[in-house]
Amino acid sequence: MGPGADPGRGGDAVTLQASVVGASGFTGGEALRLLDGHPDFAVAQATSRRYENKTIGSVHPNLRGMGLRFSSPEELESVDVLFACTPHGVSMSQIDAFREAADVVVDLSADFRLPDEEWYDEWYDGHERPELLADAEYALPELNRENLPGAELIASGGCNATAAILGLKPLFDHGILAGGEQLVVDVKVGSSEGGAGGGEASSHPERSGVVRPYAPTGHRHEAEIEAYLGARVSFTAHAVDMIRGASATCHVYPDEPVSKGDLWSAYRGSYEEEPFVRLVAGGSGVYRYPEPKAVAGSNHAEVGFELDPRNKRIVVFSAIDNMMKGSAGQAVHAANVALGLEETAGLEFAGLHPVGAP
Amino acid sequence: MGPGADPGRGGDAVTLQASVVGASGFTGGEALRLLDGHPDFAVAQATSRRYENKTIGSVHPNLRGMGLRFSSPEELESVDVLFACTPHGVSMSQIDAFREAADVVVDLSADFRLPDEEWYDEWYDGHERPELLADAEYALPELNRENLPGAELIASGGCNATAAILGLKPLFDHGILAGGEQLVVDVKVGSSEGGAGGGEASSHPERSGVVRPYAPTGHRHEAEIEAYLGARVSFTAHAVDMIRGASATCHVYPDEPVSKGDLWSAYRGSYEEEPFVRLVAGGSGVYRYPEPKAVAGSNHAEVGFELDPRNKRIVVFSAIDNMMKGSAGQAVHAANVALGLEETAGLEFAGLHPVGAP
Amino acid sequence: MGPGADPGRGGDAVTLQASVVGASGFTGGEALRLLDGHPDFAVAQATSRRYENKTIGSVHPNLRGMGLRFSSPEELESVDVLFACTPHGVSMSQIDAFREAADVVVDLSADFRLPDEEWYDEWYDGHERPELLADAEYALPELNRENLPGAELIASGGCNATAAILGLKPLFDHGILAGGEQLVVDVKVGSSEGGAGGGEASSHPERSGVVRPYAPTGHRHEAEIEAYLGARVSFTAHAVDMIRGASATCHVYPDEPVSKGDLWSAYRGSYEEEPFVRLVAGGSGVYRYPEPKAVAGSNHAEVGFELDPRNKRIVVFSAIDNMMKGSAGQAVHAANVALGLEETAGLEFAGLHPVGAP
Amino acid sequence: MGPGADPGRGGDAVTLQASVVGASGFTGGEALRLLDGHPDFAVAQATSRRYENKTIGSVHPNLRGMGLRFSSPEELESVDVLFACTPHGVSMSQIDAFREAADVVVDLSADFRLPDEEWYDEWYDGHERPELLADAEYALPELNRENLPGAELIASGGCNATAAILGLKPLFDHGILAGGEQLVVDVKVGSSEGGAGGGEASSHPERSGVVRPYAPTGHRHEAEIEAYLGARVSFTAHAVDMIRGASATCHVYPDEPVSKGDLWSAYRGSYEEEPFVRLVAGGSGVYRYPEPKAVAGSNHAEVGFELDPRNKRIVVFSAIDNMMKGSAGQAVHAANVALGLEETAGLEFAGLHPVGAP
Repeated sequence: MGPGADPGRGGDAVTLQASVVGASGFTGGEALRLLDGHPDFAVAQATSRRYENKTIGSVHPNLRGMGLRFSSPEELESVDVLFACTPHGVSMSQIDAFREAADVVVDLSADFRLPDEEWYDEWYDGHERPELLADAEYALPELNRENLPGAELIASGGCNATAAILGLKPLFDHGILAGGEQLVVDVKVGSSEGGAGGGEASSHPERSGVVRPYAPTGHRHEAEIEAYLGARVSFTAHAVDMIRGASATCHVYPDEPVSKGDLWSAYRGSYEEEPFVRLVAGGSGVYRYPEPKAVAGSNHAEVGFELDPRNKRIVVFSAIDNMMKGSAGQAVHAANVALGLEETAGLEFAGLHPVGAP
Repeated sequence: MGPGADPGRGGDAVTLQASVVGASGFTGGEALRLLDGHPDFAVAQATSRRYENKTIGSVHPNLRGMGLRFSSPEELESVDVLFACTPHGVSMSQIDAFREAADVVVDLSADFRLPDEEWYDEWYDGHERPELLADAEYALPELNRENLPGAELIASGGCNATAAILGLKPLFDHGILAGGEQLVVDVKVGSSEGGAGGGEASSHPERSGVVRPYAPTGHRHEAEIEAYLGARVSFTAHAVDMIRGASATCHVYPDEPVSKGDLWSAYRGSYEEEPFVRLVAGGSGVYRYPEPKAVAGSNHAEVGFELDPRNKRIVVFSAIDNMMKGSAGQAVHAANVALGLEETAGLEFAGLHPVGAP
Repeated sequence: MGPGADPGRGGDAVTLQASVVGASGFTGGEALRLLDGHPDFAVAQATSRRYENKTIGSVHPNLRGMGLRFSSPEELESVDVLFACTPHGVSMSQIDAFREAADVVVDLSADFRLPDEEWYDEWYDGHERPELLADAEYALPELNRENLPGAELIASGGCNATAAILGLKPLFDHGILAGGEQLVVDVKVGSSEGGAGGGEASSHPERSGVVRPYAPTGHRHEAEIEAYLGARVSFTAHAVDMIRGASATCHVYPDEPVSKGDLWSAYRGSYEEEPFVRLVAGGSGVYRYPEPKAVAGSNHAEVGFELDPRNKRIVVFSAIDNMMKGSAGQAVHAANVALGLEETAGLEFAGLHPVGAP
Repeated sequence: MGPGADPGRGGDAVTLQASVVGASGFTGGEALRLLDGHPDFAVAQATSRRYENKTIGSVHPNLRGMGLRFSSPEELESVDVLFACTPHGVSMSQIDAFREAADVVVDLSADFRLPDEEWYDEWYDGHERPELLADAEYALPELNRENLPGAELIASGGCNATAAILGLKPLFDHGILAGGEQLVVDVKVGSSEGGAGGGEASSHPERSGVVRPYAPTGHRHEAEIEAYLGARVSFTAHAVDMIRGASATCHVYPDEPVSKGDLWSAYRGSYEEEPFVRLVAGGSGVYRYPEPKAVAGSNHAEVGFELDPRNKRIVVFSAIDNMMKGSAGQAVHAANVALGLEETAGLEFAGLHPVGAP
């Protein structure tokens, strides 16, 4: 994008070229959908080794209308921005090719999310290109907006980590938590987190109707939460019967007593200007606290809380669509900020009501 | 809208004022969502007797961002277009007030769908204002596009009827069916058809996981299909475990043998120019025939077929989101055509993949 | 079983030894469950090549309490009855080993269901042991009870075929249908029909919430229905969001008009003595017609009907649990009859209310 | 039951007469089902004011085979045992009539669960008959088996409390917890907990696919857990998309470090003789930790744990069918113990695999 361009809506907008690598997976399809409906982007390529030359719509039925076929990941065209939706481990090995092809690379895997090599040594199997980690910017605008403009390597956050960070951040921002407290993060997630394909545990007969502890301890997103909140958390994830959605319930015991007013101040202070965070705590109607259903298909996060004076506890609820705010939506949001576009461009979809297992 | 205005996108578009009466129900919420995201409409009023003065978002959580409260249905402001999302029977009694408030009334109930009083005498409990039926235009653009421009009373079709009509219409258009054949229409629908509230049969424990015959015979949409296709059909509806979605399987026995090529010609002939109808018949991948999941949240219909030479049968499949193509989406689509707007304005959402019970 | 034994309940019952071959699959697990809870059977072996030496409970969590491990299919012990739950094609190649191991073989695959070689040539890839087909008895007691006692090779019916046959049989029994009429059988089935494992189409994100035509025409159960009803049917199957359950809606046009009384006479005549068939047609409450939910986990079939005078149509509904009446339950029922046991032994479970996607 | 009777299986068993008051609700139907299939009980009456004279099967479709109609709650016959399945508040006002009609009353509501009047003053709206609380025995045999024989008033535990108590009890039994530690109990429950009927929040469109915080703080089962474990817990409940099932995840921080061996010793020590508790912790296959699906329809509880050395945490998982172990099954189990019957009589059903939203 040339310096004089004005990529915002209206006027003589420049259309930016975007590619999606690993476009046959769930997050790849979601990125494609968002880019195809984005006023400032045109999709140049959607790569898939397995489905090369097949239509996009043969894999993603909602995109049957796109006149595009999957292309080979070996032949990347030069574009403005490349979204890497490959499995963990691929981006770090292909990063040079990605960066050669695109001015800006947004990686949706875990490969550039953590701060430095030590984290990867402890939580993953090390890192092939640790020297790049310092240049990578964490995508979550609510946490890192000021560092995104001009960033050339952006790491989209993990879905569970995003939910937990958004829920807990105001408590740290406003001194209600200091970092040494015991924090329980009990997460419930949908089956799209497992990605396309899936094995026996993800088959419909075995996966339907479950409340299944799938990561009782040691989940890698625990590291990500700690890296960005600066506090240790006790993380446990359960698979439940939805497709999209991650819901984090955080059980928090602050050292000093707080009032409900303190909490409202903290959460409003952190989020009242945020276009994609809604505070939902009590009120009337069916939907009184954050719920994945209420944000399904949208880039919104819902965050709320309840005070438990009897147990000196704050219960924080946070709900996102793991494919959107927890992945492709966050990636596009970050790209909007990085490229100086309107922040909400391409992300205006409000979600549906009613909607089933989202 | 003045004669010189150009309400299309770009240029100096005029924003039209729109109201939704009965806005707390499911179709009312869907109409609100579409109008709120529509480039040419602004929402003037959303009425609800029960929720007067409550926020829209307290009922429709996806619309928490709309800065609007429900107003009284007694105090209708003057607008360009009014969408009536009231239960059957209300529109026919309130129609004068609606038409006084708005230049164009789009009714989403059954009150103005059928051609004349005799149909209402046979299938309903008669009609209060039969003299208006001749002026009402059936909303489905694929069937009635040429009569919509300038229409002042538009009747949005029933969801099951819409699915069946879209599936069967090409066979009549192209002479494969003449009207005297035996036509079975076996429909599977989601729980949003029952509307908000619902009784015991709609409670989650009783309604989950069902394949429940809820209208074995005599469903009123049978009349609507017959009225617009000019042929008698044997209609049966089943409730299944989804929220949005209507799927019609039509079992058709033509008098003369047809080839698959004949069918492709017929369906392409009827629909290849249609922005909201996709032909899906075979091919590769998981989604080889029309499915409600593939269109959930969107205004698209999927239509497809298979030939059964052994039984001299054509099996036709048709899938829509009953809240969109089967209700609010069809209504907005018709309003777009009636008012000279871009047909697809406000209806571009592609749907989601993956998505659960849609 | 020696001639003097009395295997009925009470008295000095003899416990019969039973084995399940292919016990790690869904029907194998169901057969194990039924045999383990059966008063007259003891489970001698449960074979699985893949899970040899693993506990039964590691695959079938409901059977964690059984003190048994999978054994090799190569080392079959001598038993009274062997239930073959192997994929189609295996039984016909292993039948000699099965029959050498057991006095009675009940095959749950399609390998011995159809009357003779010609059917297998037309609908399958032929048959390896066609000379055995004449000796095989179709398991469904409601159709073939009189031929089961003493049978040594029993072929358990297909789930969809069972549902359709039970629904339509009274119309043929009582002369309402003669066999030349046009019969539409529109079936909705759960995901357990696809068996354990499953591919992409059976993954939870892709399979949840579907109404998916998976066998528009040419389903092999069409042959089975025709073979046992002596009439041609137009069969179409849809996958819907349940796990257990098959529901058949039959659209029938008799040549002569019938009354509701005629229908009640026919259905009562065929089924009033049957321990596992319930007539459900109208009445009050939530469950007015046959539903898979109402029979989930049980060996019951629900059959009902509605008359459509306007279209000269009878709509017949039939619902079963495809794992029970449509497979393992039918097999045990047939074994009970064949061996002179109490018909309902081991099959008394009533099902659950409420129950989810069954 | 006379002192000389031997109600156990075999021999000359005496059949006990049992009634269910409030038999049209979900727990009432479940109690009926269990009693109808129980070798030692005969159902004398099933009362329902609303459905008086209607068949049981018109409300509970799985019980269509029972030849019984609902009778008036005003005319209680004299029986051996009465199961009160009425809403909270009814039993305490009707208790004299119940006890006059039956030697043993098992109450499934909350009316007699808590130890004394003070608990009811704090957590409920007081108690009408506080003098009876001291005589009431808590039903859960794993906690209170020794006090059940001969008991005349038995209070079946709450479902969430049962799940939490079963999960945490071994840690108290074996000194791993002392009672002063911080205990988080994060519960996920199905829609049958809300009972039959339900309002808008329980309607299928609104309730499907949820992860909905419905009791963030202050849930009454928190009191019950504290009353029977003698320790304060931080309880939060979420509605998820299943019908039957309650799953408790307890996040526990013991003061002293423990090993996995310590945990196995504790849990084996508490439960290895228990007929209805299974330890499930790790291992192979799809079901590695407790899951409601694995116990759906059965009276089993699954309990398991994982150690989180990094956070000095024990994560305890507990899963039950809320209608069975969490209600009617627990009630029948307690009645078996109280009356000297075989503990597992009538409760042998193993559950199903696969099974959907249970």
